[in-house]
Amino acid sequence: MARSIQSLERAAAVLRLLAGGERRLGLSDIASAIGLAKATTHGLLRTLQQEGFVEQDDASGKYQLGAELLRLGNSYLDVHELRARALVWTDDLARSSGESAYLGVLHKGGVLIVHHVFRPDDSRQVLEVGAMHPLHSTALGKVLAAFDPVAHNEAMESDFASITAATVTEPAAYDRELAGVRARGWASDVGETWEGVASVAAPIVDRRRMPVGAVAVTGAEERVLDGSEPRSALVAAVRDCARAVSRDLGAGRF
Amino acid sequence: MARSIQSLERAAAVLRLLAGGERRLGLSDIASAIGLAKATTHGLLRTLQQEGFVEQDDASGKYQLGAELLRLGNSYLDVHELRARALVWTDDLARSSGESAYLGVLHKGGVLIVHHVFRPDDSRQVLEVGAMHPLHSTALGKVLAAFDPVAHNEAMESDFASITAATVTEPAAYDRELAGVRARGWASDVGETWEGVASVAAPIVDRRRMPVGAVAVTGAEERVLDGSEPRSALVAAVRDCARAVSRDLGAGRF
Repeated sequence: MARSIQSLERAAAVLRLLAGGERRLGLSDIASAIGLAKATTHGLLRTLQQEGFVEQDDASGKYQLGAELLRLGNSYLDVHELRARALVWTDDLARSSGESAYLGVLHKGGVLIVHHVFRPDDSRQVLEVGAMHPLHSTALGKVLAAFDPVAHNEAMESDFASITAATVTEPAAYDRELAGVRARGWASDVGETWEGVASVAAPIVDRRRMPVGAVAVTGAEERVLDGSEPRSALVAAVRDCARAVSRDLGAGRF
Repeated sequence: MARSIQSLERAAAVLRLLAGGERRLGLSDIASAIGLAKATTHGLLRTLQQEGFVEQDDASGKYQLGAELLRLGNSYLDVHELRARALVWTDDLARSSGESAYLGVLHKGGVLIVHHVFRPDDSRQVLEVGAMHPLHSTALGKVLAAFDPVAHNEAMESDFASITAATVTEPAAYDRELAGVRARGWASDVGETWEGVASVAAPIVDRRRMPVGAVAVTGAEERVLDGSEPRSALVAAVRDCARAVSRDLGAGRF
């Protein structure tokens, strides 16, 4: 039993490796990165390939993630209760605000985007579902860190990387900002993750009033801000949306 | 080694089980469905949970797929060469046709949707990326089965389920249709998968002229059809798109 658990952990390590950085790696690179013999690594890769979790490029012989992960990820979304409850509300939020709406949950020290409604114009936009956003620089991340103790711990242990000139890189300053987020009930990101892009987020809670995710609106600073602060109508719309989804999840009215 | 491979196969079986049908299952249900002792199954589930592939509902104790699958599925898309090459062309196809565009690849006896461009109007649409479409009833599936021998075998072994009254459920009739698809270079689906919805697809080939996927336009029969056949302008647009992506993948001009 202990043995079988170990092989699963190793397989997960291979998948994580292929999901970051290079993304197409040869057998030797994978073996040395996860610290296993080539024969052991080859056994893992062969089984992962047979199950569709890994694919091998015919020409180069390199390995990359496989299609079965996309299918399973889609099934994960299908069963996601928060996302299901939020679909209509986030759609309305994007329409009424004219900006893109995001739904995020805490995952492995970051914000996993589980729903993304495009800005309702004709521009070309890249779907962010499945992408990870930082806890320390985004409005979604600040909301999660402010209201979810687990997210708070993970945020405080993060590297506080400087992403733009405006990113808060001091843990103490970040923690002070979270106190403000808790007091007013929403968070903002003004050019701290993407230059010229601002965002407003509010927490979603379940029937036990536990934070289960956050909803945000994101757009160009010129449209989202009024001076240096987010427009109050936008803040109200995001908070209304978060309250509506929380109510749908069984949270009390007050 | 044999042992570690077996535990991976079992873990994959658990994930496939959770991806289909019920989607939220208790320990006993999972153990009996995959034919393992409860203790063994619990060991698998605990490790899968620890790696983020499975989540356990606090209230019911039931298991469901985990967020790490969404993250890994997104990383799979990021490294998908066909999808990357097709992004701009499928976007243009959706704009010029006014309908939704899909990009599909063969996966486990079906068509896995790896890209979906929404119909360029303001209607609410559900993203199909990561969804599986049938080989025997869709235009994408017919193109894959007509040009890819592996897809052909998988299609001929499928159950030919009757999805609508128009679905072709006779293997011999389907195989005759594929000969026609090969001869003219494109396939259609007229209400065979969704009532009132028609679709046109064409194959994408790589530098060795091997079929690697298919592109399709899908919309209401009233807009897509001219009489009982797809509008010829739409067929031309889909085939132009498939040729353009193939060229980008290194296929020759002729």
